[in-house]
Amino acid sequence: MNGVRPNILAMAGYTPGEQLNDPAIIKLNTNENPYPPSPRVFEAIQTALTSNSLRKYPQPLGDTFRKAAGKVLGVDPDSILIGNGSDDLLTILTRAFVPEGGLMASPTPSYILYRSLAEIQGARFEAVPFTQDWNLPADWGRPANLTFLPNPNSPSGTLVLPAEIIRLANVVAPSPLVLDEAYADFADWNRLELLAEISNLIITRSFSKAYSLAGIRFGFAIARPEIVSELVKVKDSYNCDVLSLAAATAAIVDREYFLGVRTKILATRARMAVELTKLGFAVTPSQANFLWCRPNRPAKPIYEELKQRKILVRYMNYPIGPTGMPEGRYDGLRISVGTDAEIDRLLEELGSIL
Amino acid sequence: MNGVRPNILAMAGYTPGEQLNDPAIIKLNTNENPYPPSPRVFEAIQTALTSNSLRKYPQPLGDTFRKAAGKVLGVDPDSILIGNGSDDLLTILTRAFVPEGGLMASPTPSYILYRSLAEIQGARFEAVPFTQDWNLPADWGRPANLTFLPNPNSPSGTLVLPAEIIRLANVVAPSPLVLDEAYADFADWNRLELLAEISNLIITRSFSKAYSLAGIRFGFAIARPEIVSELVKVKDSYNCDVLSLAAATAAIVDREYFLGVRTKILATRARMAVELTKLGFAVTPSQANFLWCRPNRPAKPIYEELKQRKILVRYMNYPIGPTGMPEGRYDGLRISVGTDAEIDRLLEELGSIL
Repeated sequence: MNGVRPNILAMAGYTPGEQLNDPAIIKLNTNENPYPPSPRVFEAIQTALTSNSLRKYPQPLGDTFRKAAGKVLGVDPDSILIGNGSDDLLTILTRAFVPEGGLMASPTPSYILYRSLAEIQGARFEAVPFTQDWNLPADWGRPANLTFLPNPNSPSGTLVLPAEIIRLANVVAPSPLVLDEAYADFADWNRLELLAEISNLIITRSFSKAYSLAGIRFGFAIARPEIVSELVKVKDSYNCDVLSLAAATAAIVDREYFLGVRTKILATRARMAVELTKLGFAVTPSQANFLWCRPNRPAKPIYEELKQRKILVRYMNYPIGPTGMPEGRYDGLRISVGTDAEIDRLLEELGSIL
Repeated sequence: MNGVRPNILAMAGYTPGEQLNDPAIIKLNTNENPYPPSPRVFEAIQTALTSNSLRKYPQPLGDTFRKAAGKVLGVDPDSILIGNGSDDLLTILTRAFVPEGGLMASPTPSYILYRSLAEIQGARFEAVPFTQDWNLPADWGRPANLTFLPNPNSPSGTLVLPAEIIRLANVVAPSPLVLDEAYADFADWNRLELLAEISNLIITRSFSKAYSLAGIRFGFAIARPEIVSELVKVKDSYNCDVLSLAAATAAIVDREYFLGVRTKILATRARMAVELTKLGFAVTPSQANFLWCRPNRPAKPIYEELKQRKILVRYMNYPIGPTGMPEGRYDGLRISVGTDAEIDRLLEELGSIL
């Protein structure tokens, strides 16, 4: 059919979470932040909203953002690569490191997009099951052209410990280990400082979760400057627009607002975990802004029943689960941490359903 | 070095036009529009600028834009693919159609990015020289996995006639011919209606030029819906952000404003062509918002002298020129159409330099 590559024709394509327009819906399915972005974000966008900034091309490398983020994070601005959302960065990394027929790997169950990126690139994909307690298997070791380790992981919300990260990075070297820290802002710790020790480590971050900016598409990667300069060749010249750059720069410097939102989300997460456990779910202790909940009955009808009641959670259904799980598909509900009022409604409806 | 693909290591990387921050500079180097975007764009961004729209993911396919654009252009909304700038679309097309080791082609001298996209993909690239009057050579015919035909072309600003487009499309079928219409809004005609006749034709459009929105990164492609649904698998799920989508939708429906800006630019272009010819440049008749000017002396010192006087034009230097040009490199100045005041300054400085 019209010359489309066979690997593209054969693939199903990644299906993003449902984005329904009904404002009455409580949306707990794509881990958006229930709180508004920092007021400084709105100020920054208003300031950037001039005829001249709209009609001219933006900074290709986002130097203003890089300088601000470098200062906040304590890293060299030249080690930062801007992206049109974290997905743009995962795409750039795939194109930079993986030849057609090459190998990509990630643990599983995890972010489904990794496999889609391999399919688009015409690469093979190896999904390595997590252990039952969401750690890496001791024998994971086959080097791949590109290995993704989401930390915290989705759907589990769990963290792999630094010693494990270092071990895996050494196994896959000199190929890179990408530590996907989209949810790291909600965790007890992140591993930015590992970058200094491990030369093949690349970290990616998102503004869609902790900074309440999923709508403006912004993320960044941190890697050695000599890696960043190769990735720059692969990215589109102007991959981030002038308003997103302004918004992201304002958001990352407003630490006080960020910490306030984080505190609220962590408090709600703790309460959700207790209440959902009481309702009979097996809830994995989470370091992210969502909870992985497995009911002691079929999960999908609960998802459907909630949707009918205008609460959207994510029904996840993986071909294989962590090691030691019963054979067959592995499913459950991934529920984003909402506002307290939203979670009250969720718990109420779940109480009536179960 | 750290597992980067050899094709990436070997390439130089596309160099975008200089984006200098000095507001005193007259910027005629990247074909930005000298006039502001439609006032409706600002209204639309203000309306879209709410906490909810920033914190939630945008429409993955941009349905609101597709519906509006489909109506304006008289095409099926399902035949429209949104892109984070026209470059995003060229990238998506490359990944969808070109395997590693495949072949890409375009006429030359033309948009330099096409070759960079081939290099990133690990594909071969064939640059076919234009004839001396900027037409396609009669014997161009080798099928490639993907063929780009910019129309109008850059740097020449010239159009290839519909009969030639149809001929080339037939030669490369079933692989696609991409008609890159980034500058078509400034031409006497475009060839949207060819889409109905030619099943392997794909058209790309940009909002960076005619709509004065280079800063927000938006473009779209038009192709058969069955092609679009394959391209959707390749694009990032949320490749366009909520503010860009709002801006682009407002811009495309404001036909009156668009036509007003177009009229002004075409008038200035006509005057520039006359005056630059008087100054001794060989000026190619342009259907775009820039002029290709070849002086009867070395071009680069003129570019440098203008830059020193705070006027930025684009010095272009190609390894080969159109057929029949003297051997060796082929260079000249590509000058964007500015406001009348900017062009007065340009002509004055050129008069003093030459």
